[in-house]
Amino acid sequence: MKENIKKIKVLLESLPYIRGFAGKTIVIKFGGAAMTDDKLKQSFARDVVLLKYVGINPVIVHGGGPQIGVLLKKLGKETRFVNGIRVTDADTMDVVEMILVGKINKEIVGLINYYGGRAVGLGGKDGGLITAKKLVVKGEEMGFVGGVDSINPSVITSLEASNFIPVIAPVGGGLDGLTYNINADTVAGTVASALNAEKLILLTDVAGVLDKDKTLISSLTLSQARSLITKKVAVGGMIPKLKCCMEAVAGGVRAAHIIDGRVEHAMLLEIFTDAGIGTAIGLKN
Amino acid sequence: MKENIKKIKVLLESLPYIRGFAGKTIVIKFGGAAMTDDKLKQSFARDVVLLKYVGINPVIVHGGGPQIGVLLKKLGKETRFVNGIRVTDADTMDVVEMILVGKINKEIVGLINYYGGRAVGLGGKDGGLITAKKLVVKGEEMGFVGGVDSINPSVITSLEASNFIPVIAPVGGGLDGLTYNINADTVAGTVASALNAEKLILLTDVAGVLDKDKTLISSLTLSQARSLITKKVAVGGMIPKLKCCMEAVAGGVRAAHIIDGRVEHAMLLEIFTDAGIGTAIGLKN
Amino acid sequence: MKENIKKIKVLLESLPYIRGFAGKTIVIKFGGAAMTDDKLKQSFARDVVLLKYVGINPVIVHGGGPQIGVLLKKLGKETRFVNGIRVTDADTMDVVEMILVGKINKEIVGLINYYGGRAVGLGGKDGGLITAKKLVVKGEEMGFVGGVDSINPSVITSLEASNFIPVIAPVGGGLDGLTYNINADTVAGTVASALNAEKLILLTDVAGVLDKDKTLISSLTLSQARSLITKKVAVGGMIPKLKCCMEAVAGGVRAAHIIDGRVEHAMLLEIFTDAGIGTAIGLKN
Amino acid sequence: MKENIKKIKVLLESLPYIRGFAGKTIVIKFGGAAMTDDKLKQSFARDVVLLKYVGINPVIVHGGGPQIGVLLKKLGKETRFVNGIRVTDADTMDVVEMILVGKINKEIVGLINYYGGRAVGLGGKDGGLITAKKLVVKGEEMGFVGGVDSINPSVITSLEASNFIPVIAPVGGGLDGLTYNINADTVAGTVASALNAEKLILLTDVAGVLDKDKTLISSLTLSQARSLITKKVAVGGMIPKLKCCMEAVAGGVRAAHIIDGRVEHAMLLEIFTDAGIGTAIGLKN
Amino acid sequence: MKENIKKIKVLLESLPYIRGFAGKTIVIKFGGAAMTDDKLKQSFARDVVLLKYVGINPVIVHGGGPQIGVLLKKLGKETRFVNGIRVTDADTMDVVEMILVGKINKEIVGLINYYGGRAVGLGGKDGGLITAKKLVVKGEEMGFVGGVDSINPSVITSLEASNFIPVIAPVGGGLDGLTYNINADTVAGTVASALNAEKLILLTDVAGVLDKDKTLISSLTLSQARSLITKKVAVGGMIPKLKCCMEAVAGGVRAAHIIDGRVEHAMLLEIFTDAGIGTAIGLKN
Amino acid sequence: MKENIKKIKVLLESLPYIRGFAGKTIVIKFGGAAMTDDKLKQSFARDVVLLKYVGINPVIVHGGGPQIGVLLKKLGKETRFVNGIRVTDADTMDVVEMILVGKINKEIVGLINYYGGRAVGLGGKDGGLITAKKLVVKGEEMGFVGGVDSINPSVITSLEASNFIPVIAPVGGGLDGLTYNINADTVAGTVASALNAEKLILLTDVAGVLDKDKTLISSLTLSQARSLITKKVAVGGMIPKLKCCMEAVAGGVRAAHIIDGRVEHAMLLEIFTDAGIGTAIGLKN
Repeated sequence: MKENIKKIKVLLESLPYIRGFAGKTIVIKFGGAAMTDDKLKQSFARDVVLLKYVGINPVIVHGGGPQIGVLLKKLGKETRFVNGIRVTDADTMDVVEMILVGKINKEIVGLINYYGGRAVGLGGKDGGLITAKKLVVKGEEMGFVGGVDSINPSVITSLEASNFIPVIAPVGGGLDGLTYNINADTVAGTVASALNAEKLILLTDVAGVLDKDKTLISSLTLSQARSLITKKVAVGGMIPKLKCCMEAVAGGVRAAHIIDGRVEHAMLLEIFTDAGIGTAIGLKN
Repeated sequence: MKENIKKIKVLLESLPYIRGFAGKTIVIKFGGAAMTDDKLKQSFARDVVLLKYVGINPVIVHGGGPQIGVLLKKLGKETRFVNGIRVTDADTMDVVEMILVGKINKEIVGLINYYGGRAVGLGGKDGGLITAKKLVVKGEEMGFVGGVDSINPSVITSLEASNFIPVIAPVGGGLDGLTYNINADTVAGTVASALNAEKLILLTDVAGVLDKDKTLISSLTLSQARSLITKKVAVGGMIPKLKCCMEAVAGGVRAAHIIDGRVEHAMLLEIFTDAGIGTAIGLKN
Repeated sequence: MKENIKKIKVLLESLPYIRGFAGKTIVIKFGGAAMTDDKLKQSFARDVVLLKYVGINPVIVHGGGPQIGVLLKKLGKETRFVNGIRVTDADTMDVVEMILVGKINKEIVGLINYYGGRAVGLGGKDGGLITAKKLVVKGEEMGFVGGVDSINPSVITSLEASNFIPVIAPVGGGLDGLTYNINADTVAGTVASALNAEKLILLTDVAGVLDKDKTLISSLTLSQARSLITKKVAVGGMIPKLKCCMEAVAGGVRAAHIIDGRVEHAMLLEIFTDAGIGTAIGLKN
Repeated sequence: MKENIKKIKVLLESLPYIRGFAGKTIVIKFGGAAMTDDKLKQSFARDVVLLKYVGINPVIVHGGGPQIGVLLKKLGKETRFVNGIRVTDADTMDVVEMILVGKINKEIVGLINYYGGRAVGLGGKDGGLITAKKLVVKGEEMGFVGGVDSINPSVITSLEASNFIPVIAPVGGGLDGLTYNINADTVAGTVASALNAEKLILLTDVAGVLDKDKTLISSLTLSQARSLITKKVAVGGMIPKLKCCMEAVAGGVRAAHIIDGRVEHAMLLEIFTDAGIGTAIGLKN
Repeated sequence: MKENIKKIKVLLESLPYIRGFAGKTIVIKFGGAAMTDDKLKQSFARDVVLLKYVGINPVIVHGGGPQIGVLLKKLGKETRFVNGIRVTDADTMDVVEMILVGKINKEIVGLINYYGGRAVGLGGKDGGLITAKKLVVKGEEMGFVGGVDSINPSVITSLEASNFIPVIAPVGGGLDGLTYNINADTVAGTVASALNAEKLILLTDVAGVLDKDKTLISSLTLSQARSLITKKVAVGGMIPKLKCCMEAVAGGVRAAHIIDGRVEHAMLLEIFTDAGIGTAIGLKN
Repeated sequence: MKENIKKIKVLLESLPYIRGFAGKTIVIKFGGAAMTDDKLKQSFARDVVLLKYVGINPVIVHGGGPQIGVLLKKLGKETRFVNGIRVTDADTMDVVEMILVGKINKEIVGLINYYGGRAVGLGGKDGGLITAKKLVVKGEEMGFVGGVDSINPSVITSLEASNFIPVIAPVGGGLDGLTYNINADTVAGTVASALNAEKLILLTDVAGVLDKDKTLISSLTLSQARSLITKKVAVGGMIPKLKCCMEAVAGGVRAAHIIDGRVEHAMLLEIFTDAGIGTAIGLKN
């Protein structure tokens, strides 16, 4: 009994957060360790279902992962990378879409449903959700690597109206009728802006944005974030993540978060505790 | 951090219960120690708000309490009891209504609102919610003591449609245009039936229904409950409470619970843990 | 038959008024003789029901009355008045709330229902309707005497959507969690503004606003009303009533009326005859 | 003032009737003197608008009148009558439809709108409202004289949902694509059944159904009405009117009334006074 | 089979047009040969039903025709014309309304229903659709000849919400309570503006607007149209038609078309083929 | 012009079919040549869009195809067939799901969108659409080959309410949390029953059901179909297709059709011509 009362007290501590986010939309980029580690993956699915049941609307955007490379290798297909981005020819794109939409997406949908949610998987072509545009990186032809031209969120809002949880694969259809692979962070950020989301959460494999002396920065304004890039404190893969967050906030998202997906329940820790976790980017500190 | 993760885990343990009761109505009779003890009272209000925010529809019916006697005494008004029920003349009824509707009800409304809910207090005359009928106890005239003739729940459903939390004082209007004081358990039970509630919870000052050897009975079918009364195992104040629960279950309520309101968060313990608390009355064990 | 035909002709004379006010909201401050005299009180309730049935939305705000003093006296509680306002300590406030919300309000609800309406009584704490602020009068501490900080009319609009008639007691909850007694005219005026009402009607115990030579002024513009106050033609209790009307009109109410509640059906005479009754305050004469 | 108070009292006397018929549909057959006399006609239009504004849904079905004969005569067209019904050839039918739909109907629509209502005129072909079938009277070919095969009330319910007042001309389209003239009482009765109306009111040029000794019978059960016909107490034109009322009541209409349209406001006298007027046919006396 | 495949291919060619006009409103002035020739008339009705079923909302406005003159002559009534407009006294207006509303309108309604549509006929007085104003032509009294003062399209939108097809006779009610005959092109144009229609189509008895050398002009901007009138290229009856189209386009209609109603399916040819037919007036060529 | 008029006439011939199927649901199993031949595939997508735009609700269920075998072979994975069904181990199932959901499904979605529709692809796990059960064929373990346990069509009805076109891959989630490959005909048939569809259309690579003398049977009742199977007239792959159709008809689908998908526009020929195409199975001939 004592144990149970302690539990109820903990439940009650979440009330202010539940109240604060009731009816709000939170877009979560699901990727990295959180997506490859079985235990983290299951935790994540259950966390998403909890969010839905306490009245918050989660929208999941997932990335790809090692599975693409594995299948390409099995098929004897070699890949070249430019600036960390896979140059994607038509055959590679086929494999990428199959893995993203036909495997990873459905695995997540299945897991969420297993924990009692009602997820619906979407590729960017479904309902015309994501219109892609060809991306050119440093003047190099990248093939079927695209950026986001526009987001038409009507299929998401239709599904949310019936309490489904949308799970989005980062693939878009071009006006040329072709299919493009898009960076999942970019998709998450533009979808969050299009939905006027309360939060954008990027699950990553780092603790967050670090200072010169490698200590975690817990919050950043847009100008502070800009300065970090200019001053080359933020480097490497963190730069596009920071930019993605900054654009989302500039596009109307209340706050964007870069958090450590290697920590179990990282997303809930961010949402349901005052301490938060990782780095928050917003209009104000 | 570890502490926080532990908390999140506890939060997640409540998911199956939240999922199970999503969108369901739970009618709670609020009374006894839970209503007189300041700490328990505040706990209760916060618990109610939590229920609402995780998607459950609580409907509160409160009883009176020592305040009625105190005011009657201050006014030099003496009272006679028959079978434990106060014989209520017109002047006494005035005092009863004022305390129930004008003081206790508003205190509960205020507390719930303080914790972030949106409560609306209702007497039985509001929106024609409770039509009362004169009660005759053992052939004796009880004055303005009434029973429930019928429940018109439209004012409750209107308020719930706008996410308000109804808080009901056990007072009803007779077809004779007069006002009657009604037993709060009876009001809670008939309101629960009229709303086809998932649960009726009676907060009492005992641990639940006890067996011959004074051990708590954790669940009872209707026929087991009937037998307890026939065999005089259930005695005294427990008999009307048991009958109230049995009628509610017979009237369509999924389960009725007699629980110990002296335990903080008793209601949440009943709803959010498998162990439950007190005695459950249902169609099956 | 002739008699009946005459009656039908009278009924038809009301058509232009019924048509003109169809679907509009009229806020009525119910108080004074109209509320204390039994016959006038019953008349008033029936008049309100008629308004509702011919398609007008009445919202009632009632005042207190001699009953507060009577109960305070019975309880041996003495009261001090500053500027005609009762200095209200915590105990007194308890009595005030009990009488207003638990007795007078429910009496009016009961009467309206008796005549076939469906009234729902509301204190200012219900649904967060009235947020009160502490009032300081001439530098003196008045205790739990408050003014209106803000009105959240959502509980009224929810009830009106289901054709209930809201009856409001002039009590509000402060942000401090405490309860305040508020002048009923003030509540009526601010509620009328918040609802964008067509009319605000104050039932008083005088014929209306009188000129220097004690003749009734049938209509006033805002500047004429202001001038009456400046020139000290309007004096005493009329000044706050006039100011209340002026603020309501400035706040978007089409017309405010100070009428003689001692006249039976005064409210209907104002609404359903061209002659009107009492004094109208509007943007134009 | 006294005069005005008297008027208000009269208005209040109508409250029980307004309350009783709120939201109900009343189908009125408009014809005879009420339709030919200018003053009665205007009175009728205003009465209809009053009904609408106090929350009752009037549906008007009008008959033809002397205007048909006048135009036929001007056109040099002779007519033969069988059993009081005009044998209607194709040319005559053209004239009949033009007068009914293009003249009488629009006059009524215009008058109702003039008094502040929003009427929409309908012929039986509009929205497929009335499907007609050829009528054979005593083995004689009557030409384009029809009966009601079926009523599709969807155009009426669409218009009522937007608060329009439907005004129906007694003309129907056959499955053969041709147009038929139908007895207006029959149309009113079948429309009332199809709408599950509260009342069917036939405005006639007689006081109502008379007894053997020529005194008015104020109410009849179905079997009493049947007996009147069998015993030949009801004769001539009264028989079809009685039958029409009996069928309507058998078809679900609460009460049918044969009243004297020569009396100004006859319809309102029937609806708004206890005495009523004319003869009521219902399941019970 | 081959034949059938060819047909399906044709059906598919219409897809881009169906897609382009889905959910849009098209107002069609029905008149001239299209209305007097039996085969064209039936074709037209079927064409209208097709439009409705492929998701376009047709609104029909019909003119009068030789039938008015025929009936006036039969009745021995002589008519004078000023500027091609019939001087209309009260008796003539009666005949005009009867023919338009009671005959022509109902014929069209009947035909559309025969082909499976659900048409509802409306005169301008129905639901207060058209408010007319007296027209004075070149200083001469024209009697009951009117222009459009205002359009209240609520009865049309109510009927469209239930999938009825509105068919409008060009008759309006003046604020004076009288009825006026209005030019059908004018009614069609103003109704099209009030509905923000996609297209206004005038069915005429000419090929369209002709150039100086009598060749058809297939499209005109507003300024080109104005210039045609100024330079007297457009003459006679074409001028009011052009002006009507220009006003409609200026009033928000996307394109207005003057097409040859003598060609079977002219309306569908305009809507469903790229070539179009007749002359289009729009903001751009 | 003549050409265009001819086209319009053809368009009009489709009116009775459009009218007859307005608002109805048609479930189409897309497979065989229709899905592998580029031209047929594009035709099909355009045909689907046409159906949607003329007011019919198409629901597509697609099969797999040679692509699965190709990829399996590339991956060096061998497959065994039992009774024509691929024995599917976990790795094979992965490939099957990727191809069905991630490639074929998205190709169809892309094509439909290209022609102006708004398609949304669904696997059976999305929104819990298809619950699968393990299939045992002739006592042999088939691995992840499943049957339909139940259909929850709520995700389809949500998408149709927003005018999206659902495209379903024949993959279902078992209660064991695993994924199963299901025969596409079976999915189409059970989805059609669950939706109470008007038609089920199976696109095949044969002309339809053939008689003993190899002539096409154009229609079959349930008992005639049963008899064909009993008498071994229907053999091989036709038997499961016939059974699928029979179950759909028994389950409430109005008619089921086995048609020749090798014929361009076969589906439209079936829907929009009287001759129909292939074999229809229904309650009556």
